[in-house]
Amino acid sequence: MRDYPLSRVYQLIEPGPVVLLTTTHKGRANAMTLSWHTMVDFDPPLVACVVSSANFSFAALRATGECVIAIPARRLARAVVSVGNASGRDVDKFAAFGLTPRPAARVDSPLVAECFANLECRVSDTRLVPKYNLFILEVLKAWIDPAQKRPKTLHHRGFGTFVVDGPTIELESKKP
Amino acid sequence: MRDYPLSRVYQLIEPGPVVLLTTTHKGRANAMTLSWHTMVDFDPPLVACVVSSANFSFAALRATGECVIAIPARRLARAVVSVGNASGRDVDKFAAFGLTPRPAARVDSPLVAECFANLECRVSDTRLVPKYNLFILEVLKAWIDPAQKRPKTLHHRGFGTFVVDGPTIELESKKP
Repeated sequence: MRDYPLSRVYQLIEPGPVVLLTTTHKGRANAMTLSWHTMVDFDPPLVACVVSSANFSFAALRATGECVIAIPARRLARAVVSVGNASGRDVDKFAAFGLTPRPAARVDSPLVAECFANLECRVSDTRLVPKYNLFILEVLKAWIDPAQKRPKTLHHRGFGTFVVDGPTIELESKKP
Repeated sequence: MRDYPLSRVYQLIEPGPVVLLTTTHKGRANAMTLSWHTMVDFDPPLVACVVSSANFSFAALRATGECVIAIPARRLARAVVSVGNASGRDVDKFAAFGLTPRPAARVDSPLVAECFANLECRVSDTRLVPKYNLFILEVLKAWIDPAQKRPKTLHHRGFGTFVVDGPTIELESKKP
């Protein structure tokens, strides 16, 4: 995996891909699926995400203040759904679904080796956690897998239906 | 346009489409483009969005506490970019870019007739506006255009590059 500039992280998150959010808490690594996220600022990149308090990951995120956002391409669709359907209470999802945890540089949460991008994050604002389970994360470091060319991301439409990225169109715009 | 159930609004927003956000303030209707949004809750649907204070729409959203989120399909890509490159300070974007404002039911902001979905929204939480320009919106009413079958949405990757929805895949999942 190769360093990716923080100033370009928004280009990964802004199109709305399904992501995996990993945590490590009390010695256990876990992963969940997440589509409820948005960019909040460019550089340093801030991301808002909603992690339900019903999720096993919620307590880990709350307690450690750290996570990794890993972005899977289409070939991981089955693993993504399996991760979403299981709970870290019962299962080691990395082992069960063929995902490889790798040490991160700035956080204890694992990178996911099979994902084409990994963002190491620290929780930077919890004011909207009590009411909405909404966390503001700061991306501390970003990685990209240069071997995955033009990865196609997944966009969840509910109940296991995903739209896969299709054609790219380019129109003249100066806006980032 | 036809009523759309509030409990299914997340299926429109969760995949991360580029949207138009419309406001009406001091008698002027305006529209901006927006990709920085996420679902926050299912029903009533809550949406978080980031509207920069540099945008003309920011003051309108702040003052009126209302907006419409209109979701364009691929055929509106050029209008979407034009809306994003212009400011409501200088231009009537509806007239300039061939968009038709229609009265909404619950808010003064206009629906966009050409969009396949329109969500009437009220600002419900502004605690993160001062620091992040992040608004929490409640969707009060949703509309869908039944004439637009399987609309393909746009996902912005920066500087006028958009990924268009491609194929849909279905995997077994009980998760909404």
